[in-house]
Amino acid sequence: MSTNENELILLAHGDGGLLTHQLLEKYFLPGFSNELLDELSDASVFSMQEGRLAVSTDSFVVDPIFFPGGNIGKLAVCGTVNDIAVSGARPLYLTASFILEEGLPLGELARIVASMSDTAVKAGVKIIAGDTKVVGRGQADKIFITTTGIGLLPPQVNLGYRRLKPGDKVLVNGSLGNHGLAILLQRETLGLDSKVESDCAPLNLIIEKLLKRFKSIKIMRDLTRGGLATNAKEIAQSARVDIWLDEQSLPVDDSVRGVTELLGLDPLYLANEGKFLIAAAADEAADLLDFMKKDSLGENSRLIGEVRAGSGNVYLKTALGGTRKINMLASAPLPRIC
Amino acid sequence: MSTNENELILLAHGDGGLLTHQLLEKYFLPGFSNELLDELSDASVFSMQEGRLAVSTDSFVVDPIFFPGGNIGKLAVCGTVNDIAVSGARPLYLTASFILEEGLPLGELARIVASMSDTAVKAGVKIIAGDTKVVGRGQADKIFITTTGIGLLPPQVNLGYRRLKPGDKVLVNGSLGNHGLAILLQRETLGLDSKVESDCAPLNLIIEKLLKRFKSIKIMRDLTRGGLATNAKEIAQSARVDIWLDEQSLPVDDSVRGVTELLGLDPLYLANEGKFLIAAAADEAADLLDFMKKDSLGENSRLIGEVRAGSGNVYLKTALGGTRKINMLASAPLPRIC
Repeated sequence: MSTNENELILLAHGDGGLLTHQLLEKYFLPGFSNELLDELSDASVFSMQEGRLAVSTDSFVVDPIFFPGGNIGKLAVCGTVNDIAVSGARPLYLTASFILEEGLPLGELARIVASMSDTAVKAGVKIIAGDTKVVGRGQADKIFITTTGIGLLPPQVNLGYRRLKPGDKVLVNGSLGNHGLAILLQRETLGLDSKVESDCAPLNLIIEKLLKRFKSIKIMRDLTRGGLATNAKEIAQSARVDIWLDEQSLPVDDSVRGVTELLGLDPLYLANEGKFLIAAAADEAADLLDFMKKDSLGENSRLIGEVRAGSGNVYLKTALGGTRKINMLASAPLPRIC
Repeated sequence: MSTNENELILLAHGDGGLLTHQLLEKYFLPGFSNELLDELSDASVFSMQEGRLAVSTDSFVVDPIFFPGGNIGKLAVCGTVNDIAVSGARPLYLTASFILEEGLPLGELARIVASMSDTAVKAGVKIIAGDTKVVGRGQADKIFITTTGIGLLPPQVNLGYRRLKPGDKVLVNGSLGNHGLAILLQRETLGLDSKVESDCAPLNLIIEKLLKRFKSIKIMRDLTRGGLATNAKEIAQSARVDIWLDEQSLPVDDSVRGVTELLGLDPLYLANEGKFLIAAAADEAADLLDFMKKDSLGENSRLIGEVRAGSGNVYLKTALGGTRKINMLASAPLPRIC
């Protein structure tokens, strides 16, 4: 993709005329090319076998658009791929719609598109439809991307809150809070020299392997906005059970722990973009944990808690031996983390 | 949906915590409720028969967000429904993702959601997944909506540029330029007292009827950004034919003609949101036109031209007997018309 770093997005890039076509042909098509997208028709048409489809959509407005460990494009692919994956489905197709601010350097757009393309290849999904709109300076903040994912749910997969039972074990595939903290440290001028990187990654391949091997997996959930705390609370409420988490088992990187303690933040509420919670029957939990640890996206997996009979509460057994009731995030330390 | 017109969108409405849940439960779920959306899972899961799916996505950034004949919500449903419909598919499901500016009155959001809900019911589609992000004041312009549509292409439908042949007739389902002009008159303080309304409408039901009855329909296309001119040019280029349009046959409302002449605008390049071009074999064209005119969304249908052998050009036979070569829109009279 040849680009001139000095070229900027103009309003006319979004009016459906000549410049819109040039933007497509020079930037989007080379990055995303596949037989469906290249048709450039009003709608992409593809054949599907009979079955259950999973569909999810998310808008991404992260600020800054480039951050340690990723950028808004990588995030827009990972976020939607992961939402499909935790439903148990195999993500196949993505759509991507761009809202660009007049004045965005085309070089930045090119880097974002390249990153989306790389991540889509890694996740094995195709970007099959898209749209571009341009708004004037000060009417958007650089770039917003909305992705929608379509996946196929294998016949044997049957996840659902209704399957959760007291005694089920709760696991997570690695350390908590890295994405949220990486963004926060970029945004705030705190004078902290930190090496925290976003954990942004597509989770579909590890999840597919787990689902093939472990029939007792009951639910999965990616731990994005609101972090582990808010997501565990939502699960507990939906499933009408209690979830007990063990603070000492929660994986938190030293670099994250140090900074969050300094800033008075709780890693339990910070967003992740490459982490998922998994609940499974107790008798398979140890094997599941071992298997997760063998995957590069699960090396720091931990068994972090269990399901008990209850009415939608989440409790944390603290390192000091006490018990803390966990509520949903009431107000985030900062907006626009995804 | 009970709302307090004085309440405003806060950043915390988008952080995935308590206020996000309240926004969902008070605004989005009552408007869009259906068995798939109400699950509130990471992905909506539904069964599909074996077949061809059509998928399309668009972001809507129209300014102003309320305009004569519609608002950004109605537009976001119609635009994507129509993209699916002109591919020949029956739209079934939509996703809707919202980017809200801090300070947007919740009463305005409620009106937009109600309008989306009404239009979705009218079009017979379900909104099955969504997302909401909030950005700070001055980081977006009130509200942007991205919709993605999924439709099922009936086995017997087979539209495609390759099917276009010299002699095929070109029709349109009504008057041109109303949407683009309605937006322009709202945006610019021209001191014109005009009654021009957007033609924003879901076209899937009339298109479904036409496709059932007329096997010789070869392609359809909705005439949005760039208007009839740009879209005809794209069709001619893709199909490697020429398209000849007859200026005297083009339906343009008197109110639109008057204002566009005054302002030096060409209705051929103005966006429509309830108009589609249709090309069909010559021997069925008269019956097709009669049938279209019986539908409320086709009362002003016209046969406007024909396909000839050629290499991707569009020509307009002018009212004065001349010939004008039509190019794509090079720069729009104004941005953010959809």
